[in-house]
Amino acid sequence: MSVTDPKGFTASGVSAGLKTSGALDLALVVSTGPRRHGAAVFTSNRAKANPILWSERAVVDGQVTAVVLNSGGANCFTGAQGFQTTHATAEAVAEALGVSAGDVLVCSTGLIGEQLDRDRLMSGVEAAAAALAADGGPDAARAIMTTDTVPKTAVVRRDGWSIGGMAKGAGMLAPALATMLVVLTTDADLEPAELDATLRRATRVSFDRLDSDGCTSTNDQVTLLASGASGIRPDLDEFTSALADLCQDLARQLMADAEGASHEITIRVVGAASEDDAVEVGRSVARNNLFKTAVFGNDPNWGRVLAAIGTTSAAFDPYRVDVSMNGVRVCSDGAPDRPRDEVDLTPRALDLLIDLKTGSAEATILTNDLTHDYVHENSAYSS
Amino acid sequence: MSVTDPKGFTASGVSAGLKTSGALDLALVVSTGPRRHGAAVFTSNRAKANPILWSERAVVDGQVTAVVLNSGGANCFTGAQGFQTTHATAEAVAEALGVSAGDVLVCSTGLIGEQLDRDRLMSGVEAAAAALAADGGPDAARAIMTTDTVPKTAVVRRDGWSIGGMAKGAGMLAPALATMLVVLTTDADLEPAELDATLRRATRVSFDRLDSDGCTSTNDQVTLLASGASGIRPDLDEFTSALADLCQDLARQLMADAEGASHEITIRVVGAASEDDAVEVGRSVARNNLFKTAVFGNDPNWGRVLAAIGTTSAAFDPYRVDVSMNGVRVCSDGAPDRPRDEVDLTPRALDLLIDLKTGSAEATILTNDLTHDYVHENSAYSS
Repeated sequence: MSVTDPKGFTASGVSAGLKTSGALDLALVVSTGPRRHGAAVFTSNRAKANPILWSERAVVDGQVTAVVLNSGGANCFTGAQGFQTTHATAEAVAEALGVSAGDVLVCSTGLIGEQLDRDRLMSGVEAAAAALAADGGPDAARAIMTTDTVPKTAVVRRDGWSIGGMAKGAGMLAPALATMLVVLTTDADLEPAELDATLRRATRVSFDRLDSDGCTSTNDQVTLLASGASGIRPDLDEFTSALADLCQDLARQLMADAEGASHEITIRVVGAASEDDAVEVGRSVARNNLFKTAVFGNDPNWGRVLAAIGTTSAAFDPYRVDVSMNGVRVCSDGAPDRPRDEVDLTPRALDLLIDLKTGSAEATILTNDLTHDYVHENSAYSS
Repeated sequence: MSVTDPKGFTASGVSAGLKTSGALDLALVVSTGPRRHGAAVFTSNRAKANPILWSERAVVDGQVTAVVLNSGGANCFTGAQGFQTTHATAEAVAEALGVSAGDVLVCSTGLIGEQLDRDRLMSGVEAAAAALAADGGPDAARAIMTTDTVPKTAVVRRDGWSIGGMAKGAGMLAPALATMLVVLTTDADLEPAELDATLRRATRVSFDRLDSDGCTSTNDQVTLLASGASGIRPDLDEFTSALADLCQDLARQLMADAEGASHEITIRVVGAASEDDAVEVGRSVARNNLFKTAVFGNDPNWGRVLAAIGTTSAAFDPYRVDVSMNGVRVCSDGAPDRPRDEVDLTPRALDLLIDLKTGSAEATILTNDLTHDYVHENSAYSS
């Protein structure tokens, strides 16, 4: 499983002492080639952490040998000193591997506004480089965890080639990739421009449609590395489809482990005039605190769904909309249909179906409920 | 105090049995003239409740004799039957007062998607009409409460004329007036067009800048009635200033009583390129669940403030922004300044100052923290 499943990769996860708990906190994923191609997508937040500022530039030439990731600190809003720490991290990895720092991407996650301990980071990089192994994927996946309760990994295998992945992120999962670090690896032989195109297509319908709490992180990054070690050039559509499946798998794992959640909510919007409309409606419902608290209370309060739809610019008539929860149509044409007590919200999964009846486009957004535990975890996070 | 403070108004609050608790749930405010001028602003939510659909049309001619308001049910998404209930309510008030139904505005608040009991409503209207009194304002203010813990009233008095007001709303306070019902009365002698203009100016800088949980209700309505009973035509700017003060007073009362809140947060954004930018930045911070839970935990997590600013389209450079909490500048030029433990968040009031350093515009947004009690109240609301 994980990032070392495809041929041509090594990985490691070590404890650099960034987390006071002594848990693993530094991960390294290295492409051993023959190709060292890569692509990445970054947070849409305009306040970008130092590792994002670094990686955005480093990935431009499509040559990526390694990704180094730390938990225990976001290295965001840490000024010039913070950027120098990111730079020094890339240099240390480059020196250990005998490559250029420009071929090393950096990711960080943790508290914003605190300096990382550079000495510990440098020693950690040394230890991580020494620990690199062809079966190091699981350690790497554990080293990037913050409030995650379980590591997230996945793999898809096709005829002669495969894609592996690991992800972290258990809160701030929103529009464009919030507080999420993902590394995807493949032994397929694809060019940087192909990787960039396929990665954007796959993330658009997976990570970009996961919206845990509407908050977009400063540090999100999804990186795809291709070693070419299988010697196979797959059909690009087939590869994109496999990559999207893998991303969807990881996105569902992120949803299942979202901070304090007691329900996993799949919002399917159908009958929309456009896919953009469907996404806007789904996201508006996913961000409505009143709907999300109602779900926590096992209360099928569909009025809050319609109130959330009403704040969008999507084409719809509020008095034509149907809403179903777990298969029970509680609202038809904007008026009560089946009694709400027919809806059983005790299972962890909630399927919410919204039919706008204005067209044939659709989209699915994944989210969670808003719970006491969410409030608790996020009020206690930095203290 | 309240809506019966200005001359030319009577009011009442009765129990119509819409609330199972038997508490007051029907309010009536009547202008006894000589003028019966009025204006109103409504929710920006495109999914509008039946009383909004009615009142929007009834107010067009600027002639308003009465406002009838019920708690115990929003009469929203209740189909044709629900609209008929609203219509019947206006007719019943009109009959009791000997006026046209088109001069009666209707407001409702409570659960969405349930029919109101029309018989109880009709009897309630009869009782409310019989109970109308020149000192009935306080009863009316109590009858519109839902999860409010205290009634909200205010009055401003000027030379020979005054403005009174009552408000309800303790959650869903967002963009344009969410779950908020407000009735404002004045004995000043102003024309309908003047009332409309002054009401829009006053609400734009008060109720429209209160954002408790980012959720916009289907039922918000702010109504201003002018009896002309003072015989005085005040200067319009002076009147607008007094009205804005009154609205700001009521908005602060709403913030202070927001569902489950443990902090009242005043977000002042300065140095913005435009007032719109300042409002967008303030609102984005006010809606950031991670920031709001941190405040609940007395954690001055300014990184979440900057992350929220980063999701806006406002003109700013994240590495120039200053952030202060309760007078302590914790972030300067996007980097740590004073240690965060110098900030004392134990008081209920939090003053958050954000300096974007790009211009000279500013705006203030009022919000609350996100607490266990908010989750509790909103998960249990309809069950």
